Amino acid sequence: MKALHFDGQKLALVEKPTPRPKSGEVLIRVRYAGICNTDLEILEGYMGFTGTIGHEFVGEVTQAPDVNLLGKTVVGEINISCGRCEFCLQGLGRHCPNRTVLGILGKDGAMAEYLTLPLSNVHVVPPGVSELQAVFTEPLAAACEITEQLEILSDYRILVIGDGKLAQLVARVLALRNDRVLVVGKHPSKLDLLKKVGIATLTRSEFGESRQQFDLVVEATGSWDGWAMALQAVKPRGFVVLKSTYVGEQPFNPAPLVINEITMVGSRCGPFTPALHLLRKQAVDPRDLISAVFPLEAWEEAFNRAQEADSLKVLLEF
Amino acid sequence: MKALHFDGQKLALVEKPTPRPKSGEVLIRVRYAGICNTDLEILEGYMGFTGTIGHEFVGEVTQAPDVNLLGKTVVGEINISCGRCEFCLQGLGRHCPNRTVLGILGKDGAMAEYLTLPLSNVHVVPPGVSELQAVFTEPLAAACEITEQLEILSDYRILVIGDGKLAQLVARVLALRNDRVLVVGKHPSKLDLLKKVGIATLTRSEFGESRQQFDLVVEATGSWDGWAMALQAVKPRGFVVLKSTYVGEQPFNPAPLVINEITMVGSRCGPFTPALHLLRKQAVDPRDLISAVFPLEAWEEAFNRAQEADSLKVLLEF
Repeated sequence: MKALHFDGQKLALVEKPTPRPKSGEVLIRVRYAGICNTDLEILEGYMGFTGTIGHEFVGEVTQAPDVNLLGKTVVGEINISCGRCEFCLQGLGRHCPNRTVLGILGKDGAMAEYLTLPLSNVHVVPPGVSELQAVFTEPLAAACEITEQLEILSDYRILVIGDGKLAQLVARVLALRNDRVLVVGKHPSKLDLLKKVGIATLTRSEFGESRQQFDLVVEATGSWDGWAMALQAVKPRGFVVLKSTYVGEQPFNPAPLVINEITMVGSRCGPFTPALHLLRKQAVDPRDLISAVFPLEAWEEAFNRAQEADSLKVLLEF
Repeated sequence: MKALHFDGQKLALVEKPTPRPKSGEVLIRVRYAGICNTDLEILEGYMGFTGTIGHEFVGEVTQAPDVNLLGKTVVGEINISCGRCEFCLQGLGRHCPNRTVLGILGKDGAMAEYLTLPLSNVHVVPPGVSELQAVFTEPLAAACEITEQLEILSDYRILVIGDGKLAQLVARVLALRNDRVLVVGKHPSKLDLLKKVGIATLTRSEFGESRQQFDLVVEATGSWDGWAMALQAVKPRGFVVLKSTYVGEQPFNPAPLVINEITMVGSRCGPFTPALHLLRKQAVDPRDLISAVFPLEAWEEAFNRAQEADSLKVLLEF
């Protein structure tokens, strides 16, 4: 089969043997795979990953321990946990220390014609949800993770910093629970997409230097100026949710967190069930975030497009 | 009256006019005042405070708008809020941006024969609670603040880092809700006090390099090695409560918070009602934390004693 393989130095389209599902695993023929910022970071050395990259996908089941799954359109949770350790037994499989992660850690990923996943990772896409919607399940689940971690009160003032792919989904998920979501970003064209779905936006310069105005701030830029802005914008006793990782280190003194009793919440992957529910209910329709769809063979063009400043989601079609 | 005045350079016992209570204020004759680490930090320039220092006290009401208060033994909440701003109207008076803070910010403090506080800050000490217990209300309230901010599950593994005054109270408060509190500290004599009340302890060297073992870690040392230890010891999806402020800055990358979905909770002053409740129930008896009691005139000796490594609470008696 064809696969986009990263050897630690560069990415290339190669021929690999089609993976053989192990006991309890499903073989999935990939239909679409999304390019995520994590993929771009992996190409810069993040996680030291080598193998087939990609972790956002929708596909069709071609082999399965459960015959009812055959031919079904599915998506898959990306953390493959051991099921036996303390974390797994507490329902924290996404934090299993023995886990592999599809296309990120010790497990060939989704930018290939086929992938395997344990049966328990696989979710059938509900009727009425298209493949181009379903391919957003993984990042939408990451956005939903915030609502799993925190109660989102309707009278909160909420700020989302960033207008990229994840910020867009976060804002849409939070706006389902709260009318006072404001997104601050750098890209007017991306902010326009949010306006079209009824979410208030400001550019950075329009926003200025807001201090202690927001009950909940979601930092989804992964930039240190986003981090600084979040700490400045949050109210005493408020919450800062960190949805992105950062490069390098910054000098930091947590005293303002203590004095103002800020709660800072790290937030990563989320559960697929609420994300699929939102897609099924058409409560979030992420298709306007698709900047381009390329065939697998045009992967170089796709990755270039994904790195352009005005890009949102770029998909590979198989 | 006599007052311990800090002029920005040094502390001195001076004569000042007895304060005159404004409308709605109570005049309190101080009986005991406790020396807190914040007081020691103020003498190093923290908060840029000048005036009478001290914010932990117990005293007797000598003038009050409510005659029922006259002669009563009282303690007092230290944040004096405006009562009109957005924070005050949300019940967050302890974070009022217009607040003064007794002996810390814009308001003469408790290390004087008399102090004034608004009536709404004053709490009558319940029957059965001695003055030497009641003088701990303020730091005990700071310990109780954690249980106001977080639900303390009985099956959590809890680590308290530090064996000082605040750590001692935090451990005792948490141990009322959880049998699995472990305190790690540097001072065997202080750890012994915890053992005597049935709380497990380890020295730093006994504890070693625990990684990802605790659901809840309370950092109460204010030292950067305590901070590093807390981040290392907390489980994925766990909580780190910061009870102390830090000097200077450290290089920091929050990526591990994101990847492991850690929640970091800044925690400062707390409500007096639950603290007085614990004292009344004798659920926490802090008197074993008293290292020494000095008359006001011996304040220099008292401050020297408070800075010794084996000291816990040092009190001034008026």
